[in-house]
Amino acid sequence: MKRILIQLDTDALASTFDRVVAIDAGVDELFSYSGVTPENVESLIHGAMFTRKPSDLNHTAIFIGGSNVSAGEALLAKVRKTLFDPLRVSVMMDSNGSNTTAAAAVIAAAKHVDLAHSTAVILGGTGPVGCRAAQLLLSHGVTVRLASRTLDKAQATCAQLAQHLDTAKLTACESTTPEGLAAACGGVQIIIGAGAARVQFLTAEQLFALPSLKVALDLNAVAPEGLGGIAMADKAIVKHGKVCYGALGVGGTKMKIHTAAVQKLFEKNTYVLDTAAIFEIGRGLSS
Amino acid sequence: MKRILIQLDTDALASTFDRVVAIDAGVDELFSYSGVTPENVESLIHGAMFTRKPSDLNHTAIFIGGSNVSAGEALLAKVRKTLFDPLRVSVMMDSNGSNTTAAAAVIAAAKHVDLAHSTAVILGGTGPVGCRAAQLLLSHGVTVRLASRTLDKAQATCAQLAQHLDTAKLTACESTTPEGLAAACGGVQIIIGAGAARVQFLTAEQLFALPSLKVALDLNAVAPEGLGGIAMADKAIVKHGKVCYGALGVGGTKMKIHTAAVQKLFEKNTYVLDTAAIFEIGRGLSS
Amino acid sequence: MKRILIQLDTDALASTFDRVVAIDAGVDELFSYSGVTPENVESLIHGAMFTRKPSDLNHTAIFIGGSNVSAGEALLAKVRKTLFDPLRVSVMMDSNGSNTTAAAAVIAAAKHVDLAHSTAVILGGTGPVGCRAAQLLLSHGVTVRLASRTLDKAQATCAQLAQHLDTAKLTACESTTPEGLAAACGGVQIIIGAGAARVQFLTAEQLFALPSLKVALDLNAVAPEGLGGIAMADKAIVKHGKVCYGALGVGGTKMKIHTAAVQKLFEKNTYVLDTAAIFEIGRGLSS
Repeated sequence: MKRILIQLDTDALASTFDRVVAIDAGVDELFSYSGVTPENVESLIHGAMFTRKPSDLNHTAIFIGGSNVSAGEALLAKVRKTLFDPLRVSVMMDSNGSNTTAAAAVIAAAKHVDLAHSTAVILGGTGPVGCRAAQLLLSHGVTVRLASRTLDKAQATCAQLAQHLDTAKLTACESTTPEGLAAACGGVQIIIGAGAARVQFLTAEQLFALPSLKVALDLNAVAPEGLGGIAMADKAIVKHGKVCYGALGVGGTKMKIHTAAVQKLFEKNTYVLDTAAIFEIGRGLSS
Repeated sequence: MKRILIQLDTDALASTFDRVVAIDAGVDELFSYSGVTPENVESLIHGAMFTRKPSDLNHTAIFIGGSNVSAGEALLAKVRKTLFDPLRVSVMMDSNGSNTTAAAAVIAAAKHVDLAHSTAVILGGTGPVGCRAAQLLLSHGVTVRLASRTLDKAQATCAQLAQHLDTAKLTACESTTPEGLAAACGGVQIIIGAGAARVQFLTAEQLFALPSLKVALDLNAVAPEGLGGIAMADKAIVKHGKVCYGALGVGGTKMKIHTAAVQKLFEKNTYVLDTAAIFEIGRGLSS
Repeated sequence: MKRILIQLDTDALASTFDRVVAIDAGVDELFSYSGVTPENVESLIHGAMFTRKPSDLNHTAIFIGGSNVSAGEALLAKVRKTLFDPLRVSVMMDSNGSNTTAAAAVIAAAKHVDLAHSTAVILGGTGPVGCRAAQLLLSHGVTVRLASRTLDKAQATCAQLAQHLDTAKLTACESTTPEGLAAACGGVQIIIGAGAARVQFLTAEQLFALPSLKVALDLNAVAPEGLGGIAMADKAIVKHGKVCYGALGVGGTKMKIHTAAVQKLFEKNTYVLDTAAIFEIGRGLSS
């Protein structure tokens, strides 16, 4: 029986990136849909549920993607609501690579510090990758500072996270003023740059002068670097005593996690692979 | 040479149901098109006709689907008009599962009564499944009452059927008034409930009190039942002396017919698999 | 590793013709996109570049098609601009079959005349196939007359060709007046009819009365013939001393070139298969 992956993409043209990874992960048949919304997805899900026998449904799975992470989250919510026992198929959500990238970043950081005794600042922390990195760090005992251009925005994101997580160790902060930036970065062991393209949070001088810092990860793939002094291809490169990762340095792990997560969809028909589950898959790979 | 099925779907997102069945039927390559109309289909058909040698054209076929049966019928008419000798490819039409469902229902009924000496009432008979069931029953000698909410609607559907069929044994009737319903169901051996979701034609009491009734088929897959007392999963279950079938009870046969019809498309390049041909495929399976 | 072809089609429904040829050329996975424009193509190209290792990128390739050749040219320009070293994938452009048809026509002509010492007239020379045939003939030393309904239009096309080619041996001419037509066709060894459907340039009497003419190719696939007296299926048929080719006679070679070009995309990751490169592939086949 062929393994069928149904790609539900919220963009007008379904991602070729996700398609290539699906094929290389061993999917036999890929059904790609563009422009999928919570309003038009129901019959696509019913078609997945009502065709094969319940015992064969681990050969059919759903991948939710697209560049808009909120649209992907809304689609995942609708898909979960539509599925019911015993006719479930497994689902993975990775809009804009948000879950696999956040997982790869946190796994990289964990190689160099003891998460449970660390403090991290996430610069550009209100975006989808920053948000998911915050969630993963918190769930591993890290004290997290989620920084944004304004305190308001950072607080709004923290309030959202508090709906699902224990956020006792989470603080919102602003990183626009020199004092705010200094306060956000002071005493941290981990810095993650997760901002928009072309925003530089720290110069190389500022970054390498932070005495407590042990590992710096810049997830920005467009020049200039979000964290000065880190090159896109850096992968565990030690500079001025700090372990550095650039976007491509994290990207290799991200690809392995993405591939392994797609493969895991076909082990069982009941998985929902979102942030935490995708992180666990990554942990299994790196151990 | 790979077996290519070109799925022409009249909906905005091509049916996953039809795609999964096509793959499980052994199609090697499935080309799925959404939003297909008589206006934009011509070059898709030409591309199927003009690529492979005439002797290889039994490896390319067309499947017409989508939730709107009238749209599918218009598309089939245009496809038939576009194909010409010797460059034909086989075509199957099963919008909204109408042909395979009607075939499965009539085949189920035929297991329990002698069609040529039976009378059937089709409740909700003006819809695509009801209409096709009427056609199949008439062509096997059944006396058919096609019932609808109003006599006008039922008569209009009967007039349409009369354009292609011998309708000497077909009567239109209304099933809204108690007298109309009683007249429609009096003396029948077969009742088929083919109405819209959430319409209950008969209560269990009414159904099981019909003395002549031998087999009752409820094709409605959404609660409440179209025919009271029949469960969706009923498959030849005898209740109060009547053989009962629910939507899932008919559905297993429907799936087998759908699968076999897709496979038959690749035996020859000249098939047009519409209502009668799909029924014959089903008969071949159950004998 | 599976060979993935990404079909970027500028039409609303991606060509089935190009899809069947791709499958028959041995492509393992075909990702088909409709409605692709220079504006929305970038992330599709990035997804092709950033997924597989550079050494594996000869297993991913791009095909640009659709009925509108100008739209295809604009798309090719954008794709070339988006690709960069070392993350290239090979690209083929054949909108409306323009490159493969022009190549097949010129290869057919070359079997019967010595190109470098010949004069050709292209009737309907301003269209995409005529234009590409002119380019190929010029690059093989033919003296070319590019004819159109008005001299203005012919001159505009010649001016465009002059931007990329040595056009010392190219002349624009009109073919609407009896004198213009006589002047255009006088003394030529090759006539190519590359006009719109239903336009007849020459009657059979006019065609076969041309004393210098050796080979006549009519690329029009819709009756009446663009060149009178040539049947669609003619393939090197000698009539009144002239070698004749109709659209289907050229079409067999066109299909072989199309297939071989798709296969060549997977030999290396740096090919751009446009007019000249596709012609060379055809030459390799016929020699």
